Amino acid sequence: MAEENKTAAASQEQVQNDDDVVTPFEINAKDDTGIDYDKLIDKYGCFPITPELIARIERAIGEKCHRFIRRGIFFCQRDIEQILDAYENKKPFYLYTGRGPSADALHMGHCIPFIFTQWLQRVFDVPLVIQITDDEKYIYKPEIELDGPKGSIAMGLQNVKDILAFGFNPDKTFIFSDCGYIGHMYQNVIRVQKHVNYSQIKGIFGFKAEDNVGKFAFPPVQAVPAFSNTFPHIFGKGHFPCLIPAAIDQDPYFRMTRDIAQKLKYKKPASIYSTFFPALQGKKSKMSSSDPNSSILVSDKPEDIKKKINKYAKTGGGQTVEEHRANGCDLEVDVPFQYLTFFMEDDDLLEDIRVKYAKGDLLSGEVKMQLIKIIQAFVVELQTARKKVTDADVEHFMSIRPIEKMPTKWLAAKASSAVEAGVTLFSDSVGNMQTASV
Amino acid sequence: MAEENKTAAASQEQVQNDDDVVTPFEINAKDDTGIDYDKLIDKYGCFPITPELIARIERAIGEKCHRFIRRGIFFCQRDIEQILDAYENKKPFYLYTGRGPSADALHMGHCIPFIFTQWLQRVFDVPLVIQITDDEKYIYKPEIELDGPKGSIAMGLQNVKDILAFGFNPDKTFIFSDCGYIGHMYQNVIRVQKHVNYSQIKGIFGFKAEDNVGKFAFPPVQAVPAFSNTFPHIFGKGHFPCLIPAAIDQDPYFRMTRDIAQKLKYKKPASIYSTFFPALQGKKSKMSSSDPNSSILVSDKPEDIKKKINKYAKTGGGQTVEEHRANGCDLEVDVPFQYLTFFMEDDDLLEDIRVKYAKGDLLSGEVKMQLIKIIQAFVVELQTARKKVTDADVEHFMSIRPIEKMPTKWLAAKASSAVEAGVTLFSDSVGNMQTASV
Repeated sequence: MAEENKTAAASQEQVQNDDDVVTPFEINAKDDTGIDYDKLIDKYGCFPITPELIARIERAIGEKCHRFIRRGIFFCQRDIEQILDAYENKKPFYLYTGRGPSADALHMGHCIPFIFTQWLQRVFDVPLVIQITDDEKYIYKPEIELDGPKGSIAMGLQNVKDILAFGFNPDKTFIFSDCGYIGHMYQNVIRVQKHVNYSQIKGIFGFKAEDNVGKFAFPPVQAVPAFSNTFPHIFGKGHFPCLIPAAIDQDPYFRMTRDIAQKLKYKKPASIYSTFFPALQGKKSKMSSSDPNSSILVSDKPEDIKKKINKYAKTGGGQTVEEHRANGCDLEVDVPFQYLTFFMEDDDLLEDIRVKYAKGDLLSGEVKMQLIKIIQAFVVELQTARKKVTDADVEHFMSIRPIEKMPTKWLAAKASSAVEAGVTLFSDSVGNMQTASV
Repeated sequence: MAEENKTAAASQEQVQNDDDVVTPFEINAKDDTGIDYDKLIDKYGCFPITPELIARIERAIGEKCHRFIRRGIFFCQRDIEQILDAYENKKPFYLYTGRGPSADALHMGHCIPFIFTQWLQRVFDVPLVIQITDDEKYIYKPEIELDGPKGSIAMGLQNVKDILAFGFNPDKTFIFSDCGYIGHMYQNVIRVQKHVNYSQIKGIFGFKAEDNVGKFAFPPVQAVPAFSNTFPHIFGKGHFPCLIPAAIDQDPYFRMTRDIAQKLKYKKPASIYSTFFPALQGKKSKMSSSDPNSSILVSDKPEDIKKKINKYAKTGGGQTVEEHRANGCDLEVDVPFQYLTFFMEDDDLLEDIRVKYAKGDLLSGEVKMQLIKIIQAFVVELQTARKKVTDADVEHFMSIRPIEKMPTKWLAAKASSAVEAGVTLFSDSVGNMQTASV
């Protein structure tokens, strides 16, 4: 999923001079209060995540929603009700997310969808597919690269190790690289390519006539993992609902996917979208690998994290302690506080900081200190997990294999009711449960 | 390779109102004398096949050139001298041709490249790859086809059986379907897609903004079999020269391929191009599957062939016998005589007919009778061979396997000189000859 590349022009439909720029290729808010997400919801035709919806999710999963939902970080969605309908009726669905492998280690912004997707997979106990778009990263790189996409493919495999550190379920997660799996996706890719024309792709993504045709050919490749028949080893020929957790800039891909799903009589994927993780320099832009000073990397050492936050994180506080105590802090533009909303788990503590920091009772340096500890702990934990990831793990997660579609608790319930009824159960070769009389 | 589909506009660079239309999607001469091929040579920047070149080929292969070359049916080329250089210096090269599987059986026009390619493979004894563009045929079909490209894939497998009836060398021929082999081609496909932009594809193929993006994505798929590293099971990582026998309307694909080869530091493919096989109704258009009255199919019965030629073949003779005897026949527009130049092997007999028919000594009915016999014999022979083709043959030709790159006579010469030198020879696993001391 393209993030840093700005070679393509911002989408024509999305660029207005007095407006935020939000495309898969560029994020640029008009000022330091960041993107106007309410406006984006209207423009994209998404739906906000309401308190009622949050309550319904919590009833379904039997626990509190992730802080990203509670705090409006995952803030809008399409058709998530249909996913909940399926789940409540004990019908399987699956999750799909992805990553465009860049030359750098993941930064904190890249972690957001993976943290959230890991949570979704844990609470719903459903299959997850993760697409590594090594083809896209190669197509978008301005360099000629005479050895072709080999660099992007290798980087993708490194990124898979980072991804595995988030703790996805090894029994229910299939990770694939486009260059490796394309043979299995191609029939769906050309179905999608046949049903979207040049003008539409141009309108959605804002490409220009001098853009390479790989860019025009790629969006269908990102579309097809949203169709369950792209994974016959998991779903057979069935059509199962798909939920896509992603950052909001990826919506153009999935609006296109939903339009075409209708033409192909496939299920339209549901989606749940996050805001952007701000750059250290402020909410005007998101954290980006292409600017090392804007980003905290998952490979950073604790002292790097401390330095970067202390040196670069833009605050909304006063210029002097006196001014800060007198006028308080503008939390809307304050990056350390924004980061705390992403990473501090304790709601009460966060609220306490919010109130005190806004009034000026807490200094920016004190808030930064709390943030540094939390980010350091998160990164150390991730690095520890990353070190344990082996090549064999990568091979396992990327192997084409049957995956159980049903949450274990449904199977357990079924099994116990079957035992009561005097039958035995066994799994068939594609991981579906079969019932046989004894 | 698209032939019948006319949904794409003819290439802008190729269409002028007072001119022939020649694109991969449409052939339309301005009158019944047919396409002005000399003009096409100039426009495309190809080179004529000169008597000197024919003599050089005959010296290299040690036999007379195929009638298609002797009679100017394969009439122009690019870089064929480099192929002859390689052959004369005992360096391997390979042949690449293809077929877009249409719903109908092959017609006589489809046979021309296969007859010629079979001859090339026999006289040079080199590897041949044949691409079945099932993806392209699906992308170009106007129907939605909810089961995707399955119909085109199945048709492709049927077409492979037709193709095998031409007698390709089972030890040196690899046939692949795009939908089946794309996983092996994809890295080269995206290399090509990255190096050609929308404007260029539009200019070369004349696509419109409302054309689906599959059409824009496809030309790179037809390009990459011209690069030997698309077939590592045959060529390893080496770059070997490629010769493409095809009809001249395919040149846009290979002009694009040559441009990009240069950017990628790949070898530019050589090509040798044929004129079109005229429709029964005359040289204004080529034989086409979409008009059954214009075409003789390889599945036609002898009596069908007789009926079609007698009923539909346009002649250049007089309206009455008297007029014909008095004024002779205009061979330029006479379809039966054109067909004889394609299918009658005997040069002297053909010359005799030419002279007598032009003068009016031979009647159109008499020439048609000779033609009918020849076409019937050809079709019966092909049908007999087709009946012997088994599913196992198809599987063999389409299996990904090592193929010997070197002509057998070179290997034999090497072997005998090695034996004289007191060493033994054996083949390694990729079919290359290795020498080991005893």
